[in-house]
Amino acid sequence: MDGGIDHLADERSKAEFDVDAMKLVWAGSRHAFDVSNRVSRLVATDPVFEKRNRAVMSRKELFKNTLKKSVHAWKIINELRLSDEEAIKLRSFMDQPGFLDLHWGMFVPAIKGQGTEEQQKKWLSLANKLQIIGCYAQTELGHGSNVQGLETTATFDPKTDQFIIHSPTQTSSKFWPGGLGKVSTHAVVYARLITNGKDHGVHGFIVQLRSLDDHSPLPGITVGDIGMKFGNGAYNSMDNGFLMFDHYRIPRDQMLMRLSKVTREGKYVASDVPRQLVYGTMVFVRQSIVSNASNALARAVCIATRYSAVRRQFGSQSGGIETQVIDYKTQQNRLFPLLASAYAFRFVGEWLKWLYTDVTQRLEASDFATLPEAHACTAGLKSMTTSATSDGIEECRKLCGGHGYLWCSGLPELFAVYVPACTYEGDNVVLQLQVARFLMKTVSQLSSGKVPSGTTAYMGKAKHLLQCSSGVQKAEDWLNPDMVLEAFEARALRMAVTCANNLSKFENQEQGFSELLAELVEAAIAHCQLIVVSKFIDKVEGEIEGRGVKKQLKNLCYIYALYLLHKHLGDFLRTHSVTPEQAALANDQLRSLYSQVRPNAVALVDAFDYTDHYLGSVLGRYDGNVYPKLFEEALKDPLNDSVVPDGYREYIRPLIKQEFRFAKL
Amino acid sequence: MDGGIDHLADERSKAEFDVDAMKLVWAGSRHAFDVSNRVSRLVATDPVFEKRNRAVMSRKELFKNTLKKSVHAWKIINELRLSDEEAIKLRSFMDQPGFLDLHWGMFVPAIKGQGTEEQQKKWLSLANKLQIIGCYAQTELGHGSNVQGLETTATFDPKTDQFIIHSPTQTSSKFWPGGLGKVSTHAVVYARLITNGKDHGVHGFIVQLRSLDDHSPLPGITVGDIGMKFGNGAYNSMDNGFLMFDHYRIPRDQMLMRLSKVTREGKYVASDVPRQLVYGTMVFVRQSIVSNASNALARAVCIATRYSAVRRQFGSQSGGIETQVIDYKTQQNRLFPLLASAYAFRFVGEWLKWLYTDVTQRLEASDFATLPEAHACTAGLKSMTTSATSDGIEECRKLCGGHGYLWCSGLPELFAVYVPACTYEGDNVVLQLQVARFLMKTVSQLSSGKVPSGTTAYMGKAKHLLQCSSGVQKAEDWLNPDMVLEAFEARALRMAVTCANNLSKFENQEQGFSELLAELVEAAIAHCQLIVVSKFIDKVEGEIEGRGVKKQLKNLCYIYALYLLHKHLGDFLRTHSVTPEQAALANDQLRSLYSQVRPNAVALVDAFDYTDHYLGSVLGRYDGNVYPKLFEEALKDPLNDSVVPDGYREYIRPLIKQEFRFAKL
Repeated sequence: MDGGIDHLADERSKAEFDVDAMKLVWAGSRHAFDVSNRVSRLVATDPVFEKRNRAVMSRKELFKNTLKKSVHAWKIINELRLSDEEAIKLRSFMDQPGFLDLHWGMFVPAIKGQGTEEQQKKWLSLANKLQIIGCYAQTELGHGSNVQGLETTATFDPKTDQFIIHSPTQTSSKFWPGGLGKVSTHAVVYARLITNGKDHGVHGFIVQLRSLDDHSPLPGITVGDIGMKFGNGAYNSMDNGFLMFDHYRIPRDQMLMRLSKVTREGKYVASDVPRQLVYGTMVFVRQSIVSNASNALARAVCIATRYSAVRRQFGSQSGGIETQVIDYKTQQNRLFPLLASAYAFRFVGEWLKWLYTDVTQRLEASDFATLPEAHACTAGLKSMTTSATSDGIEECRKLCGGHGYLWCSGLPELFAVYVPACTYEGDNVVLQLQVARFLMKTVSQLSSGKVPSGTTAYMGKAKHLLQCSSGVQKAEDWLNPDMVLEAFEARALRMAVTCANNLSKFENQEQGFSELLAELVEAAIAHCQLIVVSKFIDKVEGEIEGRGVKKQLKNLCYIYALYLLHKHLGDFLRTHSVTPEQAALANDQLRSLYSQVRPNAVALVDAFDYTDHYLGSVLGRYDGNVYPKLFEEALKDPLNDSVVPDGYREYIRPLIKQEFRFAKL
Repeated sequence: MDGGIDHLADERSKAEFDVDAMKLVWAGSRHAFDVSNRVSRLVATDPVFEKRNRAVMSRKELFKNTLKKSVHAWKIINELRLSDEEAIKLRSFMDQPGFLDLHWGMFVPAIKGQGTEEQQKKWLSLANKLQIIGCYAQTELGHGSNVQGLETTATFDPKTDQFIIHSPTQTSSKFWPGGLGKVSTHAVVYARLITNGKDHGVHGFIVQLRSLDDHSPLPGITVGDIGMKFGNGAYNSMDNGFLMFDHYRIPRDQMLMRLSKVTREGKYVASDVPRQLVYGTMVFVRQSIVSNASNALARAVCIATRYSAVRRQFGSQSGGIETQVIDYKTQQNRLFPLLASAYAFRFVGEWLKWLYTDVTQRLEASDFATLPEAHACTAGLKSMTTSATSDGIEECRKLCGGHGYLWCSGLPELFAVYVPACTYEGDNVVLQLQVARFLMKTVSQLSSGKVPSGTTAYMGKAKHLLQCSSGVQKAEDWLNPDMVLEAFEARALRMAVTCANNLSKFENQEQGFSELLAELVEAAIAHCQLIVVSKFIDKVEGEIEGRGVKKQLKNLCYIYALYLLHKHLGDFLRTHSVTPEQAALANDQLRSLYSQVRPNAVALVDAFDYTDHYLGSVLGRYDGNVYPKLFEEALKDPLNDSVVPDGYREYIRPLIKQEFRFAKL
């Protein structure tokens, strides 16, 4: 803390719970907390990881800065012999998207998941030492969500025992892969496998792109950066790239052959490894996206909460001290549900980690029964949490008023760097449609007596849920976990059943599905919200240590649920899951919960244990010393290098001195 | 059009209405269309107004580029002797925030509105020729919304006949005024007027900041730029500034004295000019913000609509042509309500222009009766339309999928440059609370027999609206203007009355108000939405020329209304303004309307008559030639200056060549 004064000390003294204990709950375990705490401070105190100058860097400077930081991080990881867990945290706290994200996050896992043992041995030993740097080249200029529509071809040439990789059209150019534009030496490239004139659909291939001697693209490869993206910092540190192949040849053994292979003769052979394994990887990637969502939302909420406690506006009588904006119900009504959402996403993310372990164990035992449900669940939660987080970050920015618009508030940057999560790894609307398809299938099987499991288990109570009516009679009833759950279950089930009924009115199911898409998405979202609410309730009903911690989490849990109830009131009312009177009671309860959270708000965001470096926000500083620091940041702008700006003699002076002569045309 | 091929020709041929006639309806008149059409093309064809390189400009380059464009615009305005109307359009199509926006938009109007005739004569003649450049210095570091809480002081010194302008604290520094940081020579400064030891509250003063000879800040003035803001282009072209006064003296006659003055002896005297005149200016500024909202939303919708017609994804059988994404109901369900909103805001903006004229005429006749209603109405509409537009722009960006995240899609820039509208000229939540106060007052006066007027006239039917039930029985009934209006009126009135009832349960009205803030905001929004719906209905029920134009506008009008009904269904159901069954019918009707709009969608955005220059979007190009142009844009990025990037020798090569030595710590 600068100067050692804690402007938020008064707020912190009000907290009614043990913040250190909450830190452990947030982190998930003592061990996870220790790692995060230690590594985040390692990054925060290392001058190479300074972030504050990113706003005024040119594209080239920013890219070079990423190279510098990535290499520095790699050195630290090696010198301190960090574990994988620590290394991942280090890159995460470095907080600057870069080529290694894709190398570690997509290239290496793709080889692990789709390569044979032999291929893994060869390529992973190179990749793990960074002797090669790889990216993941799937998306094409004309094809994003529809992977099966990719146009790039890999045609087997039996004469040379090679694949000829080719981009037949401009729209088939690879476009977007991170790390591709300027850095990657290799890529896993997805292309239509063609052998003996037959198209076997999209498969993965390991392709070298650049010379390992001088980094120049190899003959037949055209590669470059796709240009500026949203924001000034954000993803502009990353060299998202384009890539075109002109009959580029690779050896046959660079096709990833774990699931299927092409023989020397050009015969396509599927292996006996179950294809479902691929879905296991998807579950893994998406659960990590949900964890990231809670992190990102927590950052925004931390900034907005601290600043709302520092900022004062209105409410004073003749020059006295003004009211903290966090004391306004309008502020609480927007901020506290987001605070609750950050915690909600944290716990559902934790549960998803368990789900991934469970799925993996089952896959290893060739038990694929739970996979469709797990897949639908992770797809839906990825979609729901990333959409809510994007919107939530921008809401936090607005909650910071005018100063939230400053780059140094950290919120514009956080928004710009976060929003791609709504698009990558599955467009959020497309994902909800997958969930909807799964729900429709589940509903249709109810009559045949199939017992739904996992997150759809509640559908097994269909008979009850279709006819029950909520027993809520007073505001406090909305703190009853069973009553809350039943309202969410009834709403989700009834929406799904209504969709199924409406679908059945169409002769052609597919036509009905496409006509009712919007309605189906809403039903899917209702299902996903139920999952998050139920996992939050599970958490707060379980054992939680620390003075007052459980009480705080309960408050947040019911804020989350009742906020959703209010936001989607139309759903709850039209399905008769609650009455208007019960909804009004929920609002009363919500206001009461806001009052209970208010004195604990700053401590609840302290529990995230974020360093000022990671937050990257003048408004969210731990010590609350906002105003002097806003000035300090302002003075650093290049425009303030001189009192009289460049351009004065050329433009301003001639203007005010009336020196321009106007030809009257 | 490049190459002359119109990739959207097929879409355009499908339109069922006269696009040229629609252009006139959108513009408001033949004259308005002619001016916009001519001036926008003047700007588009002038190389000085090129915008595409802004993303990679440094802050200083961008600022200097703004100086260059502003001066160039000034030259054109003088050389072509453009009218005021044309000059405003020119600056608007220039599409780059700069210091002159504040000079013409705030500095000059402030002097016009608050200066005496003598002051106007002196200062406006200088300002109109740009012999001085002015800004509007109101907001302080610690004070935004709460103008009455400003800290800067202007203390009259009778000895010297001067005011001493002073910044007593750091939080009293002026912070944010556009054009202040590096350009303005003068400012209208708001400060607490103190004379004879008495604080008379906030008043405006004309203050010179910089030398007219060398542009250096005058002694006692500290001024500079506040630093980077959201986005890379956006408002970073503008020198938003900070300003501190150290006992800075100005002559007494630089206080703006139309409404009140200080005499030579230091006596504070209010003039007989009604203070309500200030509200007239507010109505003017806010109606122009509503017009801008429709412009900005229309830009985003135009980009998303054209690209949705170009983009194809899924739906093909084995390599055939894929489905245009605009054909998906999920896309229509998100896009068409925004298209309808753009038109809705256009027409309510047009109506607000009439309202401003009406208010002005009444003010001149000292008739202040309609002012509170007009003030509440414009405050609410400013809030509602700017919030919807910000959200809508970001939604359009998401509707463009991954490519929407590229800077060259135009949408990140549009979002970043637009969102401050939610904060400036009144924070959007604070404004809705003003509306709510007015509504509560109106409700409370109903029983006393006072007849509500203007946009609250419907409250005069309270008795009917509190007990009526919607007569909708089939989907087509939702195309009946009376039934739609009644549902919106019932909802708005019942929400307001419920708030009033809930307020009455509190002993202390102010405490009740602050407890119920969130609910009050919702009631205010319901009222504002009713206004927009009713003005849209008025428009489509009136005379409209051109083949098929009226039909299209009717479709959009009911899409707008029924979309709102669905979005706020909780409100409609809990107030029993519609039943769940009627709501389901509204959804059926909505889907049918989407189908009717679909073939006309591209033509409906063509009607905005935007140039490719103004749109500034590769995805929204008139000719739909998206993919080749995305490549062209990519190649322009500085990172593509060289095949092997700067940083290769320093970082990448040593990494892959394993040349780093790690000290094992």
